[in-house]
Amino acid sequence: MDDIHISLAHGNGGRFMRELIEELFARHLANPVLDIQADASCLPPAEGDWLITTDGFTVQPLEFPGGDIGSLAVHGTVNDLAVSGATPLYLTLNAFIEEGLELALLDRLIASLARAANEAGVKIAAGDTKVVRRGEGGGLYLATTGVGIRAPGTTLGMDRIREGDVVLVSGPIGDHGIAVMLAREQFGLRGDLRSDAASVLPLTQALLRSSAAGAGLRFMRDPTRGGLAAVCHEIARATGLAIRLREPDIPVRDPVTSVCEMLGYDPMYLACEGRVVAVIAAEAADSALECWRALPEGAGATVVGRVVTDRHAVVLETGLGGERLLEELEDDPLPRIC
Amino acid sequence: MDDIHISLAHGNGGRFMRELIEELFARHLANPVLDIQADASCLPPAEGDWLITTDGFTVQPLEFPGGDIGSLAVHGTVNDLAVSGATPLYLTLNAFIEEGLELALLDRLIASLARAANEAGVKIAAGDTKVVRRGEGGGLYLATTGVGIRAPGTTLGMDRIREGDVVLVSGPIGDHGIAVMLAREQFGLRGDLRSDAASVLPLTQALLRSSAAGAGLRFMRDPTRGGLAAVCHEIARATGLAIRLREPDIPVRDPVTSVCEMLGYDPMYLACEGRVVAVIAAEAADSALECWRALPEGAGATVVGRVVTDRHAVVLETGLGGERLLEELEDDPLPRIC
Repeated sequence: MDDIHISLAHGNGGRFMRELIEELFARHLANPVLDIQADASCLPPAEGDWLITTDGFTVQPLEFPGGDIGSLAVHGTVNDLAVSGATPLYLTLNAFIEEGLELALLDRLIASLARAANEAGVKIAAGDTKVVRRGEGGGLYLATTGVGIRAPGTTLGMDRIREGDVVLVSGPIGDHGIAVMLAREQFGLRGDLRSDAASVLPLTQALLRSSAAGAGLRFMRDPTRGGLAAVCHEIARATGLAIRLREPDIPVRDPVTSVCEMLGYDPMYLACEGRVVAVIAAEAADSALECWRALPEGAGATVVGRVVTDRHAVVLETGLGGERLLEELEDDPLPRIC
Repeated sequence: MDDIHISLAHGNGGRFMRELIEELFARHLANPVLDIQADASCLPPAEGDWLITTDGFTVQPLEFPGGDIGSLAVHGTVNDLAVSGATPLYLTLNAFIEEGLELALLDRLIASLARAANEAGVKIAAGDTKVVRRGEGGGLYLATTGVGIRAPGTTLGMDRIREGDVVLVSGPIGDHGIAVMLAREQFGLRGDLRSDAASVLPLTQALLRSSAAGAGLRFMRDPTRGGLAAVCHEIARATGLAIRLREPDIPVRDPVTSVCEMLGYDPMYLACEGRVVAVIAAEAADSALECWRALPEGAGATVVGRVVTDRHAVVLETGLGGERLLEELEDDPLPRIC
């Protein structure tokens, strides 16, 4: 073994593992709740309902314009709590590290994770590392579990969605998917596009705190794997209603459109990691848009569709007055995007 | 893609992923707290302090005598809560699945996980699955995060350990490490040894509930990676005290001894997944042994050593009156053991 790459001894419970945890993970992630000598950490008491969620991260490459697997592992889990109406407080972290990973890269990724956690106001409460042999992992996989607190009486859910409700997105879709794809050398493409990966907490809290928007708010979700189309299919499946989207109203950046045309992808299915889809009563839609557009994260927010009764689950109305059915995704266009 | 193996489409957010989650994961893991359509689950209120812990699992092979990666992912995390004095209540589950994994095997492993969770009294509160390309994973990696409740006033920790305390183990050491190793075909060995992998909750609760044993109880830990030697080193490092172990008192099964002699392993460093090391005031040791020996899980419990002042952190007194220093583990003798 050398001193600049991960070796199997970094996973064995002995001296090298202790040093890796003390000198790399704990150096970046230390906080009063995290006790690296204990088997479990005690969460300070908090008022409200505890919510819990978990997410795994396998993005390739590990660093991409606008983020990396470290910050993504924070944003992904923070966002699942945020769209559920909670304030994220703590994360746990699992790292599956492949033998041979450069220690300097691991250090950058965990530093980035720590920065993102700090910005989102979450503390790392517990962690675990495992090392797998060369060829048995993709460099680094992370999993984070998030716990947060939701104010009692917050009621959000697909069961609250009604015909006539409108569908909003908080900004352009597909930036994350295309930015990660462009970062893969095999495509030989270059661009200035950055991932949208970010905490959506400012967006979700703005709606929940606005009395006008909050009263009409039915449901929020971050459109990650499967993109906007997948969120619409989930709603249609759960409610028995249908979603009609208006293509001219859906914000898509030019580089995303270009790459999609070049490679045959459909932006409706591309992952975002910093956007929110909200379903809201029609009369509250203007207040919600106003809330979002007042924030830098929501400057590009638009109404993109509405909830209707239709025999097709998800329909896209095109600019020319035509219609296109958006089927549920089958083949995987882009593996390891998140 | 075929119908009997995992494909990349099982990870893309579309139809195959939904069906995998509904028809395999949710079929085994369904319970009132788990909502596979929600981004986060709400934990019912409970009295006491919330404890949280997390663990990753990469054991190879995925099935071994006495357990599999599914049951291990429950026992490992349940045990971290148990030795912290908590009652485990909920787990979250992350699965990193390699393209090509047999669906029937995945089904068996998740069924086993569900059985172990049920036996330990924990519910799966949230989950996530990712699929990585063939050659980028070791079949299946799991991570579980556990939350549990600890009675207020429960005080366990290495800071409570004093010179003169005694060290107990709840049963024979090294069964898990050797059972997993024998299950690897490359060694060409066969044996009847089974892993000790199990929930240690009955053992930890017996001590906490006994007034005689509980009053003297300082600290508990499950000796996983690095085995009994690693736990002793952690104690020595945290307390500035030393541990003297008596080799003739340490329970090791004959097949473990034989394999260790054959392959040059030291049982003191082998992983257990169903044992507890407890440090207890000398006057409470008999009560603690009595508690444990009354349980099937603790039938083989013994006092194995004591806390002393010594310039060597961990010393093994051999049967012949000699001494052997147990150094902190450096090289990894057995990767992917847990």
